Amino acid sequence: MAKRDNISSSVIRRLPRYYRFLRELDSRGVTHVSSGELARRMRSTASQVRQDLNCFGEFGQQGIGYNVSMLRDVIEDILGIKCMYPAILIGAGNIGHAIANQVMFEGRCFELIGIFDKDPDKIGSDVGGLVIQNVDQLESFCRSHYVTTAILCVPKAAVEPIAETLYESGVRSFWNFSHYDLNMKFDNVIVENVHISDSLMQLCFRLKKTNSD
Amino acid sequence: MAKRDNISSSVIRRLPRYYRFLRELDSRGVTHVSSGELARRMRSTASQVRQDLNCFGEFGQQGIGYNVSMLRDVIEDILGIKCMYPAILIGAGNIGHAIANQVMFEGRCFELIGIFDKDPDKIGSDVGGLVIQNVDQLESFCRSHYVTTAILCVPKAAVEPIAETLYESGVRSFWNFSHYDLNMKFDNVIVENVHISDSLMQLCFRLKKTNSD
Repeated sequence: MAKRDNISSSVIRRLPRYYRFLRELDSRGVTHVSSGELARRMRSTASQVRQDLNCFGEFGQQGIGYNVSMLRDVIEDILGIKCMYPAILIGAGNIGHAIANQVMFEGRCFELIGIFDKDPDKIGSDVGGLVIQNVDQLESFCRSHYVTTAILCVPKAAVEPIAETLYESGVRSFWNFSHYDLNMKFDNVIVENVHISDSLMQLCFRLKKTNSD
Repeated sequence: MAKRDNISSSVIRRLPRYYRFLRELDSRGVTHVSSGELARRMRSTASQVRQDLNCFGEFGQQGIGYNVSMLRDVIEDILGIKCMYPAILIGAGNIGHAIANQVMFEGRCFELIGIFDKDPDKIGSDVGGLVIQNVDQLESFCRSHYVTTAILCVPKAAVEPIAETLYESGVRSFWNFSHYDLNMKFDNVIVENVHISDSLMQLCFRLKKTNSD
């Protein structure tokens, strides 16, 4: 299992996709899958798949393929998605609601234990069983609940004081939809930035390219 | 300018990030930026930045840096984001609302000309000036409005017949939040899939790694 410690970041980036495909196969009762089939789903090559999966140990059998549920378990273990870190979400707008619902639906990685907003019309209403709290309560909540992770769904213009409060309250990991550069501002934080419009620009590029080819 | 035709897909993937930083610098009135500063923002190296930007032509000047607005213009041109392709959105839930607002706010790449849902409670209500239409109208709308792109914000379980209708109505490019594998189903489509939970799993991995280091 020593191999698992040396997995490159590009393989790690691909793991959630492998995980999604394997989970889907598993839910359909498929017990084995070939590197060729995985490659087709990953839009990769069979040799790349074999190379990636070889990082985790020996799961492939010549002529039979990979054991789906074993491989899924290993990837779950590597990604740590059986953990349930206590997380809060700030900003209960449309994207905040969507993300809150998704985290609750997934039921892995993070347990959403608090939702915060500053809008009096939103405070007190319910999202999936959680009552939206006043953002004024952020600091005391984080300190008393040992919050690991904050999900930022606040507009960029509003996020700076909130990010500072969270940092001062000990939060060091962020799932960031707020387009605010946390790494530039704070040391020693783990940040996953989500810039949905980057993907929109890629689509635009591919459309333009197709039209001009 | 011949260089621009040979830009690798990995450089293209990084272009939206360059674009975001350059736009921010431009809005702050910054006229020039060094490869070192760009690298710091991109969490890359100055040599990687110089190599990337060298693909587009000669914009850097020794000791002065890159001309921010010129470089931004070139990237806009390469990505084609000055275009306004007619797009529709299907599924006016939380994520649909958030994405519709974002596309309208960005005001580039795509002009949102229609929003559709099947929920009678939603049909007829307004999102940023567009009235939500019955999904039954999809086919006739796409054919009469030459829709280029569909933004799919429908749950995976509901998307299959909608995707088929869109494909039959001539839509060949998709911004896909529905976790439905369009490339596996249809030939000759351009798809940008958005799997928000992949980024959540990356965050989980990094938290687990930090805790076990």
